[in-house]
Amino acid sequence: MAARNAVVLLSGGLDSATVLAMARDAGYRCHAISFDYGQRHRAELSACSEIAGTLGAADHRRVRLELGAIGGSALTDPSIAVPETPTQGIPVTYVPARNTVFLALALGYAEVIGASDLFIGVNAVDYSGYPDCRPEFIRAFETTANLATRAGVEGESPFRIHAPLSELSKADIIRRGLDLGVDYSRTVSCYQADAEGRACGVCDSCRLRADGFREAGVPDPTRYQPTG
Amino acid sequence: MAARNAVVLLSGGLDSATVLAMARDAGYRCHAISFDYGQRHRAELSACSEIAGTLGAADHRRVRLELGAIGGSALTDPSIAVPETPTQGIPVTYVPARNTVFLALALGYAEVIGASDLFIGVNAVDYSGYPDCRPEFIRAFETTANLATRAGVEGESPFRIHAPLSELSKADIIRRGLDLGVDYSRTVSCYQADAEGRACGVCDSCRLRADGFREAGVPDPTRYQPTG
Repeated sequence: MAARNAVVLLSGGLDSATVLAMARDAGYRCHAISFDYGQRHRAELSACSEIAGTLGAADHRRVRLELGAIGGSALTDPSIAVPETPTQGIPVTYVPARNTVFLALALGYAEVIGASDLFIGVNAVDYSGYPDCRPEFIRAFETTANLATRAGVEGESPFRIHAPLSELSKADIIRRGLDLGVDYSRTVSCYQADAEGRACGVCDSCRLRADGFREAGVPDPTRYQPTG
Repeated sequence: MAARNAVVLLSGGLDSATVLAMARDAGYRCHAISFDYGQRHRAELSACSEIAGTLGAADHRRVRLELGAIGGSALTDPSIAVPETPTQGIPVTYVPARNTVFLALALGYAEVIGASDLFIGVNAVDYSGYPDCRPEFIRAFETTANLATRAGVEGESPFRIHAPLSELSKADIIRRGLDLGVDYSRTVSCYQADAEGRACGVCDSCRLRADGFREAGVPDPTRYQPTG
């Protein structure tokens, strides 16, 4: 039987690289999709291409969209600083409706290539702060997807949104990825990575990532920026 | 009491112009959002700016996104022709997941400006062919929106997706818009409008529009391309 096609949202970070490895391990032919949305951390886009190649994606598309036109996030608005100490509530790095936009574009791509399975790397650590990382959001989007598309009208196989990291800790994700051969030194999680993809070590994303390697009991392969 | 903010999806066509006039008539302060998604009919983008101005939108944003990167539609892929005679089923002019993508971007914009109301011009004539114009899709997206955003987490006023044309015929839409002062000669519905916004007169969209004016019993103000 031919492998089933899947669309995998690939951000260049630790989580989505692990998801790509898991989807491939589950037997899917993976079509990666990445988004150039004007994010500060441009290095994650180069990381995407490299990860898609080394983890055996069948294809990799990059969609440009100007989220800066609507503003409202430290990741797309240079006038809002990325916090370097822990904050309460929804962080300013939250990009309004980002996962809804990305899943919608991934859905369109899935429809074009005839894939019914979409993979996204939202997880338990993230969804404490970002509303669009919660399991109930993912389920609601899945329902919407099946009403939005030809599948819903013509009775084709329905879309399934897989969020395999949803219940995993960062340490669990890292252990799973290492088992599957993910080279985390090539992933970029930092919100203010430099042009070479080296991490700041102090933003929320860096802290979550470093804690994950510590808890997993494995060396942290992250490339950090030289300190002053 | 200050007017409530609303986000209105504006495509430059007859339907969305009418929706903008209706939202304003209902007392909303309207923030229009348009999408430059690589569509063939570029003239609709100039029409958007003009319509936003004449119908009193408080603001108008244009978001660029490269839907051509995922392909699959006659509207974004120059190698797929726009049909010039009626077709069965979902037409090739359907853009995969388009309304999901557009509503997601409008949702992000609404979140940034603190608007709880979104207006979209889907209608009864369209949803016979496009799955993402059906009322059940709109309701599902509304549920998703309220889980995707700060509003869902922090208990702010929930998002409402208004689709006021949903149950109206094209003739009803036209009558309503004329009552509200919409100048339909400035709207562009044609899938293959020329650079000046003049319509081909033979695509699905042109046929629906011309039938609407005929049924409404009013002169068709559409500017048509000169015939060979």
